[in-house]
Amino acid sequence: MRRVLILAEYDGTGFAGLQRQRPGLRTVQGELEGALGRIGALPKAVAAGRTDAGVHALAMPFHFDLPGRIPTARIPEALNRFLPQDLKVLSAREVAPDFHARKDALWRAYRYRLLLRPHPSPLLRGRALWVGRPLDLAALREALPLLLGRHNFLGFAREEVGEGVRELYEARLEAAEGELGPELHLYFRGRSFLRGQVRGMVGTLLEVGLGKRSPESLRRILEEGDRRLAGPSAPPQGLYFLEAAYPEERLSPSATGSGDPRRPAGRPPRS
Amino acid sequence: MRRVLILAEYDGTGFAGLQRQRPGLRTVQGELEGALGRIGALPKAVAAGRTDAGVHALAMPFHFDLPGRIPTARIPEALNRFLPQDLKVLSAREVAPDFHARKDALWRAYRYRLLLRPHPSPLLRGRALWVGRPLDLAALREALPLLLGRHNFLGFAREEVGEGVRELYEARLEAAEGELGPELHLYFRGRSFLRGQVRGMVGTLLEVGLGKRSPESLRRILEEGDRRLAGPSAPPQGLYFLEAAYPEERLSPSATGSGDPRRPAGRPPRS
Repeated sequence: MRRVLILAEYDGTGFAGLQRQRPGLRTVQGELEGALGRIGALPKAVAAGRTDAGVHALAMPFHFDLPGRIPTARIPEALNRFLPQDLKVLSAREVAPDFHARKDALWRAYRYRLLLRPHPSPLLRGRALWVGRPLDLAALREALPLLLGRHNFLGFAREEVGEGVRELYEARLEAAEGELGPELHLYFRGRSFLRGQVRGMVGTLLEVGLGKRSPESLRRILEEGDRRLAGPSAPPQGLYFLEAAYPEERLSPSATGSGDPRRPAGRPPRS
Repeated sequence: MRRVLILAEYDGTGFAGLQRQRPGLRTVQGELEGALGRIGALPKAVAAGRTDAGVHALAMPFHFDLPGRIPTARIPEALNRFLPQDLKVLSAREVAPDFHARKDALWRAYRYRLLLRPHPSPLLRGRALWVGRPLDLAALREALPLLLGRHNFLGFAREEVGEGVRELYEARLEAAEGELGPELHLYFRGRSFLRGQVRGMVGTLLEVGLGKRSPESLRRILEEGDRRLAGPSAPPQGLYFLEAAYPEERLSPSATGSGDPRRPAGRPPRS
């Protein structure tokens, strides 16, 4: 029996989110577990994170167990034969028998993609959020650092109760000159995120960029944890799960133990 | 009455091609002409070129006539209210009353997008052709210049009869490091193209890149004009109509006459 870590790319448009739900709803996990059964693996996949319906992933880590003899390097091709066109496996590696894609992750990174031009883009629909009005970049650059560090993020999250303290390591703006027009990307990297947190932060930052609220107003959301103080959730189609990182020693098949999540980040395999 | 030149972007996936066909088939022209009727324009749009089902466009020029008083600058927004999400107008300008989007074009440019990585990409499906094996770039670089200049391109075209001589101004390879993996773009610019010519050239070039035929073999296709000598048509989803160019003086509302197509290219408006 091997424990295997794979990275999967998916187009979230046709999925009711990542997590398996009630029968009849098409989910990333459901499709993947179906394919796992076809190659003789245990049909249970554990993901590094959750993504909502319409949210995409460039390299979502999953772990699962494989009793068979198929060489690890052949796993992506084997699974891809049974996976739909909007979900494919990019790489696979054997990891420690007690490796856990969610619990062992040191951090997760997300990007939210905004298209800034006068008219919407057919080729980027479902892939980026179109913003037809100019954004105040200076105000955004003032607001983003307020989110950094350890805070109670409940005020940005959805349907969350209980512990809302999370740590955000990076929150930055990236301008990109896409062929279909100027884009603005909001990049977030943190140990973990509350449900709906990224979309809540982006929706609130959009209000900052459009001059509807001050950068300073983010402080009160973090202090009071009241969802009503934040902006509306940004729509899912602009959001991408980028990657997660694991401690290097947890990525070795022979290692055991729970690992130390405070060690320097080892990026996941992308071969 | 104004003659108006618009540039339109579309995702070709959901269209049975550009040209209006029999009723019930969803086409770019059909959707656009429907929207023209809604804003009081004559419901007849003439495009710079044709694209097949599944082929995309970044800036396809169309002309039409508008009797109403709507300001030219407001035309994109007005049309976009009635256009579907996979077809939008990017810009509009008034041109000479006898301007013709097809006949006046000095050249058209196309790109074919190849994704070169071990596994297919969900986020680029319908947007690029996935090629899982390495391509021989040196062979491609040897083959491309053979296509330049005036030739009979019937051997690459589809269902074409009659005159097959066309002039190709540019044919080049562009490497691009996309976020989803290395891409290779084949760029073609010519006065005009036969039906299916670009996809026929790309399919043949792919055989060159995969070592299935020699670069030299393209010569015989051009000499004999026999479609059976060329490779299969490359699938539509990797192909993009990029832009067309017009003589500067034909883009002015006050100009008349047929223009001189040998004048230096004036790019279409992209604002």
